[in-house]
Amino acid sequence: MGMDSGLRPRWESWGKQVEEALDGFLPGEAVAPISLHKAMRYSVFAGGKRLRPILCLAAAEAAGGDAAVAIPAACAVECVHTYSLIHDDLPCMDDDDLRRGKPTCHKVFGEAVAVLAGDALLALAFEILSCAGEGAAGASVRELAKAAGSRWLVGGQVADMEAEGKEADLGLVEFIHGGKTAAMIAASLRMGAIAVGAGQDFVDLVGDFGTKLGLAFQIQDDLLDITQSSEVLGKSAGKDEAAQKATYPRAVGVERAREEARRLTAGAIGALRPLEERGEVLRAIANYLLEREF
Amino acid sequence: MGMDSGLRPRWESWGKQVEEALDGFLPGEAVAPISLHKAMRYSVFAGGKRLRPILCLAAAEAAGGDAAVAIPAACAVECVHTYSLIHDDLPCMDDDDLRRGKPTCHKVFGEAVAVLAGDALLALAFEILSCAGEGAAGASVRELAKAAGSRWLVGGQVADMEAEGKEADLGLVEFIHGGKTAAMIAASLRMGAIAVGAGQDFVDLVGDFGTKLGLAFQIQDDLLDITQSSEVLGKSAGKDEAAQKATYPRAVGVERAREEARRLTAGAIGALRPLEERGEVLRAIANYLLEREF
Repeated sequence: MGMDSGLRPRWESWGKQVEEALDGFLPGEAVAPISLHKAMRYSVFAGGKRLRPILCLAAAEAAGGDAAVAIPAACAVECVHTYSLIHDDLPCMDDDDLRRGKPTCHKVFGEAVAVLAGDALLALAFEILSCAGEGAAGASVRELAKAAGSRWLVGGQVADMEAEGKEADLGLVEFIHGGKTAAMIAASLRMGAIAVGAGQDFVDLVGDFGTKLGLAFQIQDDLLDITQSSEVLGKSAGKDEAAQKATYPRAVGVERAREEARRLTAGAIGALRPLEERGEVLRAIANYLLEREF
Repeated sequence: MGMDSGLRPRWESWGKQVEEALDGFLPGEAVAPISLHKAMRYSVFAGGKRLRPILCLAAAEAAGGDAAVAIPAACAVECVHTYSLIHDDLPCMDDDDLRRGKPTCHKVFGEAVAVLAGDALLALAFEILSCAGEGAAGASVRELAKAAGSRWLVGGQVADMEAEGKEADLGLVEFIHGGKTAAMIAASLRMGAIAVGAGQDFVDLVGDFGTKLGLAFQIQDDLLDITQSSEVLGKSAGKDEAAQKATYPRAVGVERAREEARRLTAGAIGALRPLEERGEVLRAIANYLLEREF
């Protein structure tokens, strides 16, 4: 339950570095158009856990590199993640009023500015990446663009919406989770490794860890939507069931979903074996995510 | 009136190359999610003039390079342009039913898929760029991300919406046109030059040409909205006036707007002087845009 004693200080210190770097990368609230930059900052600094940036930095360190070098990549993945949440919450999509315990972007700034704040965050992610070391920029942009594109992040959201109200089919659930969650988590890890110049084998290894971890994470998320309250989650609970979303628990039941999350987490940790003690932080994150309660 | 005899075959041949390359870069309609890929293709192949890609290729050639090398950059800018049109047309933005003589993306595929098709095209632009020559990728991504970001393309759209129904102030009109149109046109030219390894002076020169040309082009667009019919334009005419948009003609009147378009075009052509005969195609494009009737 909770983070292990070695992980917490690392997470907090990396988290702080990411906050500061994001603050530097995002235009100030006084920059025109003011409403747009306020909306972008509102959503980016809404109290997210920064899981994807932390994974990015942890992969850089596990590769034997300096995690600080991967800070731009970490900020870029968080910008993409935030953009995807803003658009997912729109009235024409999941129509959510609450995110991280606060009113969603479109509730505060209106629908048009919310669409555009998401758009601008997506563009900003690539601007941030392009300013990182010239050597890694091409490969890193390719990873992020692919994961954020029509086959993965966006494709998963389309499939998610189209599956609403239908029988939750396991193959479809895996397509949705693979696209919406696992691909971006895998990309975060791969980009961290790429930033510090890791070899292709290492990039693929942390990517494999990330895909399994991402699926486990999303199943856990689906389970928490059923078992926790809106207050604990900071977002509307029970919505998956109400909207008849294609989720793991709906497809195979709560017990088998729990089992699958455990099995995938064990698989993720197993993928780290060749790293020996260098995989310690990544292992600790995987265990933490499986045990988390919100 | 119309294209001069030297420009037309060049435009048509480049346009054909861009169509073919876009067809290769966009996932097929049979790739899941099918609705998403259909929507992306619907909007990309809706019969656009391909002005931005043509400018990109023309800049590459004017730099003494092989225009074919700039094809990925040309396709990337067209993806960004198409994404911006899809989002601009949304009900929460300009709420347009007609674009290039066809129903807009959200009218055909629904609002959610239209938002996501735009998102996916923006990501695809960077994926295409990242696959271009490793050397130019970083600089090119930086140009495109900046031009597409919160200070320019997206910022211009926010300012455009916020200005609706208010007095059309000249400074504001220039901010909107500079962001929504001129920045992307300048970026298209700069990226074409970057793709073939042109020096910084050349990149800045075609960028300067592009900024002036882009402003002239947008003024011309505003004028055509007043003077032409929806049939000729392939989009709803007279909407600027009805929505009280901040446009050049509304700010200074039709006659002064015409003058300004001519003055800016002359300035753009003047910026090409150092190129001597290598600037011929770019000059022909500038003259054509000033004289166009749709």
